[in-house]
Amino acid sequence: MSAAPRDHASNQPIPELICELCRLFYQLGWVSGTGGGISIRGPEGIYMAPSGVQKERLRPEDIFLLSDQATGEHDCQVVRGPATGLKVSECRPLFFNAYRLRDAGAVMHSHSVWAVLAARLFAPQGGPGEFVCTGLEMQKGLRGMGCFDTLRVPIIANTPRESQLTASMAEAMQAYPDVDAVLVAGHGVYVWGRDWVQAKTQAESYDYLFRAVVESHRLGLPVGGA
Amino acid sequence: MSAAPRDHASNQPIPELICELCRLFYQLGWVSGTGGGISIRGPEGIYMAPSGVQKERLRPEDIFLLSDQATGEHDCQVVRGPATGLKVSECRPLFFNAYRLRDAGAVMHSHSVWAVLAARLFAPQGGPGEFVCTGLEMQKGLRGMGCFDTLRVPIIANTPRESQLTASMAEAMQAYPDVDAVLVAGHGVYVWGRDWVQAKTQAESYDYLFRAVVESHRLGLPVGGA
Amino acid sequence: MSAAPRDHASNQPIPELICELCRLFYQLGWVSGTGGGISIRGPEGIYMAPSGVQKERLRPEDIFLLSDQATGEHDCQVVRGPATGLKVSECRPLFFNAYRLRDAGAVMHSHSVWAVLAARLFAPQGGPGEFVCTGLEMQKGLRGMGCFDTLRVPIIANTPRESQLTASMAEAMQAYPDVDAVLVAGHGVYVWGRDWVQAKTQAESYDYLFRAVVESHRLGLPVGGA
Amino acid sequence: MSAAPRDHASNQPIPELICELCRLFYQLGWVSGTGGGISIRGPEGIYMAPSGVQKERLRPEDIFLLSDQATGEHDCQVVRGPATGLKVSECRPLFFNAYRLRDAGAVMHSHSVWAVLAARLFAPQGGPGEFVCTGLEMQKGLRGMGCFDTLRVPIIANTPRESQLTASMAEAMQAYPDVDAVLVAGHGVYVWGRDWVQAKTQAESYDYLFRAVVESHRLGLPVGGA
Repeated sequence: MSAAPRDHASNQPIPELICELCRLFYQLGWVSGTGGGISIRGPEGIYMAPSGVQKERLRPEDIFLLSDQATGEHDCQVVRGPATGLKVSECRPLFFNAYRLRDAGAVMHSHSVWAVLAARLFAPQGGPGEFVCTGLEMQKGLRGMGCFDTLRVPIIANTPRESQLTASMAEAMQAYPDVDAVLVAGHGVYVWGRDWVQAKTQAESYDYLFRAVVESHRLGLPVGGA
Repeated sequence: MSAAPRDHASNQPIPELICELCRLFYQLGWVSGTGGGISIRGPEGIYMAPSGVQKERLRPEDIFLLSDQATGEHDCQVVRGPATGLKVSECRPLFFNAYRLRDAGAVMHSHSVWAVLAARLFAPQGGPGEFVCTGLEMQKGLRGMGCFDTLRVPIIANTPRESQLTASMAEAMQAYPDVDAVLVAGHGVYVWGRDWVQAKTQAESYDYLFRAVVESHRLGLPVGGA
Repeated sequence: MSAAPRDHASNQPIPELICELCRLFYQLGWVSGTGGGISIRGPEGIYMAPSGVQKERLRPEDIFLLSDQATGEHDCQVVRGPATGLKVSECRPLFFNAYRLRDAGAVMHSHSVWAVLAARLFAPQGGPGEFVCTGLEMQKGLRGMGCFDTLRVPIIANTPRESQLTASMAEAMQAYPDVDAVLVAGHGVYVWGRDWVQAKTQAESYDYLFRAVVESHRLGLPVGGA
Repeated sequence: MSAAPRDHASNQPIPELICELCRLFYQLGWVSGTGGGISIRGPEGIYMAPSGVQKERLRPEDIFLLSDQATGEHDCQVVRGPATGLKVSECRPLFFNAYRLRDAGAVMHSHSVWAVLAARLFAPQGGPGEFVCTGLEMQKGLRGMGCFDTLRVPIIANTPRESQLTASMAEAMQAYPDVDAVLVAGHGVYVWGRDWVQAKTQAESYDYLFRAVVESHRLGLPVGGA
């Protein structure tokens, strides 16, 4: 079994990079309670954290490597996995939406409370809906966006099991081809990019925008369409 | 005196693990002002932090080991303790509620301001009462809960001394057999699990849910029964 | 020149301990913008951080040692100081209030935004006034307080120069002999204790109480007399 | 090529110091999503971080050195830059405003959500406008300010491209000669000082003041002219 390849931008083996990003995301409040996750595409396939683990305590040997050759609709094979009986993240089909429909290089899934509050503000009944904002410089952190453009992010309704989101997430992605994120009501957000650097930059920019819009609304100074 | 046994999930001696978790919980704002605490059951007995100490500065040699054989109702013997004249946490009988009534493997007690605000929102007169929420993905971090189930957490009234909570906490636990937490008005929350990993996951999930409900309420977008 | 003595509770030389606490307080938001400070009494005299420095970057050699023998009313002599032309903190006479009137072992001065908001809530015109709360477990972190007692903390008006607070702080201390803190409107809080451990425990407990009361008020669920 | 000179106050090479401050500012929420930045003047010229990079992962070899001899209006030459094809920050002309008009030693640009909310509160239509506050001790962290003075910070309207802010920022600087900061609506704040220590102290003080004013407004207890 060969060593994991090094990521170009970080010069780290990808499993190590995933663990480092998970520790950072834990500090940001995106992956508490074992929620959320990260997946990065490498030359060998798709790296993905296991399901239901404490994200800030992950070790490189806990990370799965999946083939990106579909054997069924969302059923990519595990090429290499931890010895310890962990399971692949339930987000797998959602991560694969981004890999297949958008040729993403990395996907991040955050449970940030700002994502949940932003979705609730624009879809109080639980979705579907649309998050809207404009006039914020941080919009420039998003692909193709200027600070005076109007950002519209789809909000889909949550489902009892995460994998049941697959179809509605794919539909939202097709309806919003210029947007690299889907909000899930009461749940969080999926954000992707052509590589982990763009995915992380966009995930941080979205989190900032969700917070800025929610906090502006609380001040009675709404941004965008809220 | 034998060395402390290693925890299976963390591969650390339990006293070391308790100190590490205390440092983390300090950063989360759960154990400031010497409040809050953690206890973990090991093969030798129950490990517990001392009373009234700065949780982020604990050292493994400060941790008590208690027998889990009751000698009186709540009076488990100290098997091994620090040389420095520290006292066992006043939470002892409350931690033992979880060990005895639920066969817990670990108990966490947080003074998080989100727990206090959530209790105040649902029991403004100081309890008893019931925290309610529904529709949040993070509910899946709790034993037996789906995201569309309705979560109900008992709130008990606070008492002048912590040990006086023992009976009302036990009653609340018996009235809510599917819930692994008890809120104490003006005080915080007790959360437990079959092992420290589940207890921590549930403690983080509860803290997130308390915050999400409080922040939603502030936005005029109440969740659950608030 | 002899080495600085080790603190009993931390087993660290006191100047090192002050630097470590300053880094922690910076993370807590108490000493940003060079504001706030710490002073600890040792066997040789009073240790104090310099004025107007970045608290999270302090080094042990930056710490002053002052005699605790008054030569004038508030004019204690510098026994040892940094070579670099730093000045003793302008808080000196306020710290000495606690050393002289209460025989304190340590004093902490925080600019926490929660202290400022709490003072504003109870003294919107800028003081004098009184912060009030009751029913919060964290009150037990304060000397002599139970959780059902009513806590009353004096709020004094701010003055153009910090040293001008000396007399009104002393008066407030005499009027509230059971309280180890004075709030300064628009400014922050002074908290002390018999040693640095009690001073820190009380400073954290007060910060928590200020925040809990402010956040409760925002939820329309006031605590105490707000 | 000679080694980078050491900064006097930190005794670090300036590129290292910039990286360390970027990590700190990331933790403070000022530079998420690759936004914001820092520039420090050294004896050899102006040091500046590259554009669009993850600020918490910067390495000293990523930092540009620019001549401070203008070759065109805002077109200072790159003396030394990273090998990796990074571009100089788009903030370059704005940083040079502070170097040229104020003889600054360092400039910091923060995207802090508190700066954005403060600007929105005082210029809900997007600027121009003026942030006002008074009565806060932290005003003393600003050059020439007392705590009972009235602080007025210019707010300029944002522009599609950062470099388009150059003229309106320069005008605001000329109109407010006693203030070392310019707020940009929906965007953030530029803060400078005679050296990096003063620039950082002022940046932290402004961030605190923006937050205190926004939070006071939320409590229905406005500070200053809001």
